[in-house]
Amino acid sequence: MDGTHIYEQGLDKNTANHQALSPLSFLKRTASIYPNKCAVIHGDLRRSYSQFYERCLKLASALNARAIGKGDTVAVIAPNVPEMLELHYGVPMLGAVINTINIRLDAAAIAFILDHGEAKVLMVDREFSQLAHEAVQLAKANPIIIDIDDPEFDGPGELIGEMDYEAFIKDGDPAFQWSLPADEWDAIALNYTSGTTGNPKGVVYHHRGAYLLAMGNIITAQMDKSSNYLWTVPMFHCNGWIFTWSMSVVGGTHVCLRKVTAPNIYATINEHKVTHMGGAPTVMGFLINAEPADKKPLPNTVHFFAAAAPPPAATIQALEEEGFNVIHVYGLTETYGPAVVNAWHDEWDELPPAERAQVKARQGVSYPVLEELSVIDPETMEPVPQDGETIGEVMFRGNVVMRGYLKNPTATQEAFEGGWFHSGDLGVWHDDQYVQLKDRSKDIIISGGENISSIEVEDTLYKHPAVLEAAVVAAPDEKWGETPCAFLTLKKGAPALTKEDVIAYCRENLAHFKCPTKVVFTDLPKTSTGKVQKFKLRTMAKDV
Amino acid sequence: MDGTHIYEQGLDKNTANHQALSPLSFLKRTASIYPNKCAVIHGDLRRSYSQFYERCLKLASALNARAIGKGDTVAVIAPNVPEMLELHYGVPMLGAVINTINIRLDAAAIAFILDHGEAKVLMVDREFSQLAHEAVQLAKANPIIIDIDDPEFDGPGELIGEMDYEAFIKDGDPAFQWSLPADEWDAIALNYTSGTTGNPKGVVYHHRGAYLLAMGNIITAQMDKSSNYLWTVPMFHCNGWIFTWSMSVVGGTHVCLRKVTAPNIYATINEHKVTHMGGAPTVMGFLINAEPADKKPLPNTVHFFAAAAPPPAATIQALEEEGFNVIHVYGLTETYGPAVVNAWHDEWDELPPAERAQVKARQGVSYPVLEELSVIDPETMEPVPQDGETIGEVMFRGNVVMRGYLKNPTATQEAFEGGWFHSGDLGVWHDDQYVQLKDRSKDIIISGGENISSIEVEDTLYKHPAVLEAAVVAAPDEKWGETPCAFLTLKKGAPALTKEDVIAYCRENLAHFKCPTKVVFTDLPKTSTGKVQKFKLRTMAKDV
Repeated sequence: MDGTHIYEQGLDKNTANHQALSPLSFLKRTASIYPNKCAVIHGDLRRSYSQFYERCLKLASALNARAIGKGDTVAVIAPNVPEMLELHYGVPMLGAVINTINIRLDAAAIAFILDHGEAKVLMVDREFSQLAHEAVQLAKANPIIIDIDDPEFDGPGELIGEMDYEAFIKDGDPAFQWSLPADEWDAIALNYTSGTTGNPKGVVYHHRGAYLLAMGNIITAQMDKSSNYLWTVPMFHCNGWIFTWSMSVVGGTHVCLRKVTAPNIYATINEHKVTHMGGAPTVMGFLINAEPADKKPLPNTVHFFAAAAPPPAATIQALEEEGFNVIHVYGLTETYGPAVVNAWHDEWDELPPAERAQVKARQGVSYPVLEELSVIDPETMEPVPQDGETIGEVMFRGNVVMRGYLKNPTATQEAFEGGWFHSGDLGVWHDDQYVQLKDRSKDIIISGGENISSIEVEDTLYKHPAVLEAAVVAAPDEKWGETPCAFLTLKKGAPALTKEDVIAYCRENLAHFKCPTKVVFTDLPKTSTGKVQKFKLRTMAKDV
Repeated sequence: MDGTHIYEQGLDKNTANHQALSPLSFLKRTASIYPNKCAVIHGDLRRSYSQFYERCLKLASALNARAIGKGDTVAVIAPNVPEMLELHYGVPMLGAVINTINIRLDAAAIAFILDHGEAKVLMVDREFSQLAHEAVQLAKANPIIIDIDDPEFDGPGELIGEMDYEAFIKDGDPAFQWSLPADEWDAIALNYTSGTTGNPKGVVYHHRGAYLLAMGNIITAQMDKSSNYLWTVPMFHCNGWIFTWSMSVVGGTHVCLRKVTAPNIYATINEHKVTHMGGAPTVMGFLINAEPADKKPLPNTVHFFAAAAPPPAATIQALEEEGFNVIHVYGLTETYGPAVVNAWHDEWDELPPAERAQVKARQGVSYPVLEELSVIDPETMEPVPQDGETIGEVMFRGNVVMRGYLKNPTATQEAFEGGWFHSGDLGVWHDDQYVQLKDRSKDIIISGGENISSIEVEDTLYKHPAVLEAAVVAAPDEKWGETPCAFLTLKKGAPALTKEDVIAYCRENLAHFKCPTKVVFTDLPKTSTGKVQKFKLRTMAKDV
């Protein structure tokens, strides 16, 4: 700042012309404009925007009465129930930080997270009370425990908390006064990465990033107040890819879903005229491979945000044949979920379906709110040539990149080395600047000095009509160092395949050095977000 | 900042996770994703996004070679030609500030602006070269003058500059390296208010506000890459209500229009399948009252952003009967143009047309990117009751409020008194929180101690089938202090009306004390943005 030119004289910030960017503003606005519009659907329950907002205020008030305030962590273990949505607003209204915990973790991992995040409050859905109880026993942290007793859950589970969520917010003030954060850089959410090895890392989001990605989603998904968003993406995954906050930008409707199954999804799409939803390739697989009796024709176009793991072209094509419009996005927990999108070109509509799906399987370009996306040689920090061949590391720069890892300066510094966020994902850049992932750094297979993209081999396997799911990892090989080992799940009722069939099929469709030499027929181990746990497969591959 | 909690430790800003918000990012992104998509149409000219971006880079490079840099003002006097769009990107790429000057000002006012803004460069469309020449003669500033010689202009006018725009950018570097501003608070544009009395004030915009309002427009107008925006709003008015930058968010097409006439508009809508446009009620009047031969059926829904002056309900209704969808927005130069929108409720579609238009004539609620809108008693600084009756001053708070008035600390301080931007517009708040303007503070008529909203009287007059345009101002009155004086333009071919007819009509439709006692049939004097110049009418009213 030179301070000498005319624009630097007496044109300072004040409350009239500068306010912190925060997604909380969106809910306040929408509740004021559309108080009677349906905000939340869950089973038989319907809540309007004014009711939703009022419950968030009561929650904030109740937490405030328990001395929760700026910089305090409020943890939650729950599926996609309405209370989760309320926590996304009521907690940050106090300057506190919401920490949604993956419901599929074990007690030890949850205990680690409660301790590391220094949780002051833990909200627990009754289905997970036993798990939470064990975690709290293991943890040093001593959070206030509040039960979420969802009427839609009719399974077993004891209440373990001081009281139930409804009782907790009952006396909260529906006119509770809250304010935007003093600084938009203040933390809003804490999300632990699944961490296939070692302890999970706590990714910190700020209000500014959540605000911007919330808008970026709306522009990318072309949502408006008539949009109905079905909650198939877990809200504990990057705050539901930020759609927890996005819907408030336009006043769309949240359609909660406790259990993500194909019959549930098809029925809910029809009942509530769902327009948007999202999920990992696993969820795409549910929809494609559902029993014919469970499938229902779509009542309107349903836009499906595909992410969490690279969707194979064959899966994209099959889902579009079911009538869905796939919007392929890509990102990481560290980028607030989606920060890259396969921005569509109208002329691609003319391509034959398989080719069209191939083009859509590329991860794409930066989101409207991401400043820079690049594929970089991490040694030289120079971008790799845009030739569709040279592999580099995908790197990000922008306001939808995390603040860093909580209490982990070493990992933070490593992640931001050279002024870029290092994703750990390997990819290429095509000549049209669209990025395509080839592998996680640790998943690439190096055979005889050649790089083999496990994604490329999997993509080929997915095109085989008998294959339901495929994963390829490196197996140790005396001659070549590593060799591809394929793990396959076959479709129900598909003709039996032998190892030789699979290898012969691959040789017809891939360069020979890329073809698996080992083949295993099995169910694939997966994380809660539908990502295949390749570290488990690598262990298995050693013994094949 | 207490600095003590865990989220304040080692989670700092760096280039990977913090970048200045600037609308320049949008163009860079779109040129990279959709290089071949049509960005600009002007007469026979078509430019793709890569061509458009390249020309902006060459412009920035050429200006840089003339030592233009951070905090320097680049002024321009031109209608809606492609060069205007390029200046909106090329100038801020250098950290310089674009100052679009109203083409309908006189030489003395332009000289004042050139001096006050300390213009280093002046770009002039040939149509306005004589005017610019006179202004420069009067001014102390000695800007580099560059001619814009638009092939679509075939009227008279000498070239007065050092060289022509094309020659100026010819040797610019198409790969010119630019960077985002170091601080998103840096100035991007300087816009002088029309200032009905006294010298105009220079409103300063920053990159952050331009970025946010650009996104707010896209969400409000529901634009996407298939949108075609017709340039009927002058780009010199709030940078074309920020649509100069909005279109780059989604990659839509700018359709330039040198001359805003009804035949031109209808023809262009049809030729280029225009989806969005905007304008003052005057432009709405052009479209409604065009000769039948000049009207053409619309090829698709055309969304019309109505603003600049409160559109009478009758005008909204008539334009919607022509097939347009009116989106009523409101704002001031100080709020980057539109910052308030009549957010529509689906149930209002069921209202009878006249009532529907009445509801749409209310200014509405805050834009998605405006934090607070209120109607406040300026004495107490308390919000007025939401009763649709009590008049207060409309006030704003948020990131799309100007930095302040250039070199005018007194006016800046007054505008921001009490931590709100004081619009000077008087209005009421309805019980659904929608704001409705009643008057500019200085336009309100006080008769026998009662406030009369000139807008309300005008609204009634517009409903008379013979009235083309109406304006009501205060005339001095011995008995009442002030009395309403109506100025009317009648429609061509309409039956003659007498003063008595008008007064009788008003008495049927308004409280008696609100009815005009004086009526003048005449053409209305207007500003370049279509606002009626009431100060001129007030002078005329004294002599009626």
